[in-house]
Amino acid sequence: MRIRGEPWRSIFVGDDGWTVDVIDQTRLPFSLEVCHLRTVDDAVRAIRDMIVRGAPLIGVTAAYGVALAMRESASDVGLDSALEQLQSTRPTAVNLRWALARMGEILHREPPSQRVERAYAEAGRVAEEDVAACADIGRHGATIIERLSAGVGGRPVNVLTHCNAGWLACVDWGTALAPIYAAHDSGIAVHVLVDETRPRNQGASLTAFELAAHGISHEVIVDNAGGYLMQQGRVDVCIVGSDRTTRTGDVANKIGTYLKALAAHDNGVPFYAALPSSTIDWGIADGLAEVPIEQRSAREVTHVRGRADDGQVIEVEVVNPGSEVSNPGFDVTPARLVTGIITERGVASATAHGLLSMYPERSGAAT
Amino acid sequence: MRIRGEPWRSIFVGDDGWTVDVIDQTRLPFSLEVCHLRTVDDAVRAIRDMIVRGAPLIGVTAAYGVALAMRESASDVGLDSALEQLQSTRPTAVNLRWALARMGEILHREPPSQRVERAYAEAGRVAEEDVAACADIGRHGATIIERLSAGVGGRPVNVLTHCNAGWLACVDWGTALAPIYAAHDSGIAVHVLVDETRPRNQGASLTAFELAAHGISHEVIVDNAGGYLMQQGRVDVCIVGSDRTTRTGDVANKIGTYLKALAAHDNGVPFYAALPSSTIDWGIADGLAEVPIEQRSAREVTHVRGRADDGQVIEVEVVNPGSEVSNPGFDVTPARLVTGIITERGVASATAHGLLSMYPERSGAAT
Repeated sequence: MRIRGEPWRSIFVGDDGWTVDVIDQTRLPFSLEVCHLRTVDDAVRAIRDMIVRGAPLIGVTAAYGVALAMRESASDVGLDSALEQLQSTRPTAVNLRWALARMGEILHREPPSQRVERAYAEAGRVAEEDVAACADIGRHGATIIERLSAGVGGRPVNVLTHCNAGWLACVDWGTALAPIYAAHDSGIAVHVLVDETRPRNQGASLTAFELAAHGISHEVIVDNAGGYLMQQGRVDVCIVGSDRTTRTGDVANKIGTYLKALAAHDNGVPFYAALPSSTIDWGIADGLAEVPIEQRSAREVTHVRGRADDGQVIEVEVVNPGSEVSNPGFDVTPARLVTGIITERGVASATAHGLLSMYPERSGAAT
Repeated sequence: MRIRGEPWRSIFVGDDGWTVDVIDQTRLPFSLEVCHLRTVDDAVRAIRDMIVRGAPLIGVTAAYGVALAMRESASDVGLDSALEQLQSTRPTAVNLRWALARMGEILHREPPSQRVERAYAEAGRVAEEDVAACADIGRHGATIIERLSAGVGGRPVNVLTHCNAGWLACVDWGTALAPIYAAHDSGIAVHVLVDETRPRNQGASLTAFELAAHGISHEVIVDNAGGYLMQQGRVDVCIVGSDRTTRTGDVANKIGTYLKALAAHDNGVPFYAALPSSTIDWGIADGLAEVPIEQRSAREVTHVRGRADDGQVIEVEVVNPGSEVSNPGFDVTPARLVTGIITERGVASATAHGLLSMYPERSGAAT
């Protein structure tokens, strides 16, 4: 997507042909800085310190991290050590494990002398596959926005989104934001209501940055406001991402998603989750019972990061000192509240039948 | 209520018999400071700068502000000027207008020489009436918590609340928190889930401070988390306050209340609003259509106030610079989602019939 007219990706190989450049997401939205990864240690630090975040981007960064490691030591020992080191950064990220397994399998089959070249090629493939899937999600999702556009009498279609499921979480396009970019780029007027998304404020910082940079009309709201805006008819559709979706269409996503789905349902607003099929857990049928919900650190709640008057980005304490805090990271929106699942193959109903009709090769998994 | 064992109120007359002392709520939760109001200008500043906030407390502060004004000039001109000056501080606050009208009516009937004494007496009466109403709300609401307590097998009753409807918003007890204090003080184990309540964070700062100071078990959560916690069976009852409730039981309250009511309904969790009958607008039947919703300043969303590492309380910017912001201050929870209204006379169903049965003298208003 674009930043003030220039095409960007969240990760790319630099002009020297081997340095891996990533946008430093800890500096956003206040400054746009590129971080140059030249060693596997750099890649480890980028993932661990959340210079990069978002499951797809973490996977791609890890893949390139293996490529960087091969430049340092392409031996079997070097390869295994790099895989292990990268795996330890964010132990629960599914895409990370998947990308590292893929890199390991392919590189172990190559002689060490071929591994650098092969690793860069494969990491590039991981990135391009993600871009292609996101572009397809955008294309399918845009048809929903286009259809709504016909019914709103010439004004922009108002889309509410939660958290950041944009190109900064992926390589390009994003998942939940891909339909918005695709609609906008094809000339459909869109206006985005951006949930702040406490505790980490990915909406107010990253989603708002992305949309502003690409020139898409939007407004930031606190997480509390979405229900009121739906009551007022100010939201035409909700589109969110997902961290894991069951084969029955239950959608695990950033905490607070469920509340917006309830409000959408109560006000007759369609509610979609946009995700690549790799996010579907075909082995799970009951999201509420079976998706483990990560408890994150209390500090995310007790402290807020922002820019002070002097321009420094700092953390301030916002909770009564000494009060207990709890911080569940995700919730599960039951399929009954989900209008549809936007995937790279099309829009499926949020049911086992709907998803399996679109991914018939998975029918063996649904036992 | 108590702060570390000491009984406190949010406003009281000092040892000299005339200075009006208030807790400086802009300093909470990081420091507990008393602000001494000695002139009507002090009272105006306290209300305008939100040193005091919460509709009942604003009304009481204004009443005492009139008393302070009478010490300076008890003439008719002095009285009218004080009433006007105080009225201009927060033009939309219903209790402010009501308290000033009451003071004006009574003092205009007195000769100037009697007005100081009469004003202090009447302001004290306004305060005591608020305390009595809140204590009654607490007593009635505590029966709900007590009944739930019998069914949870010895563990504490988990109560979720939103914003601050505690004694800091009133004089003592509070509205939504009154049942919690009453239950706790009578030996029922209670645990409170405190919504942070963006954008102004009254939950994380004021409610958490109050509960901690009184020794009540609680945990602060982001506004996004309540739905998940209800799905997990971690909430036994929700109790919120109200800024205005229709005669049909629609509850206008701090933005985000509606989302919690939806989640409570979806999970079979009882949802109560606690309010003095002065909050009921007997002339309004349709909350969504008829309650005007205040749009508040963008800065409340774009900036967060908190304590920096050096101990200074400052504001930091948290939204992508240049992004549009919208900030509706309240929403309306339809009566169908409200289990009951806890008032000073008892718990009514959230219907015109339920409220009128409890306030039959109002039946003329319901046309």
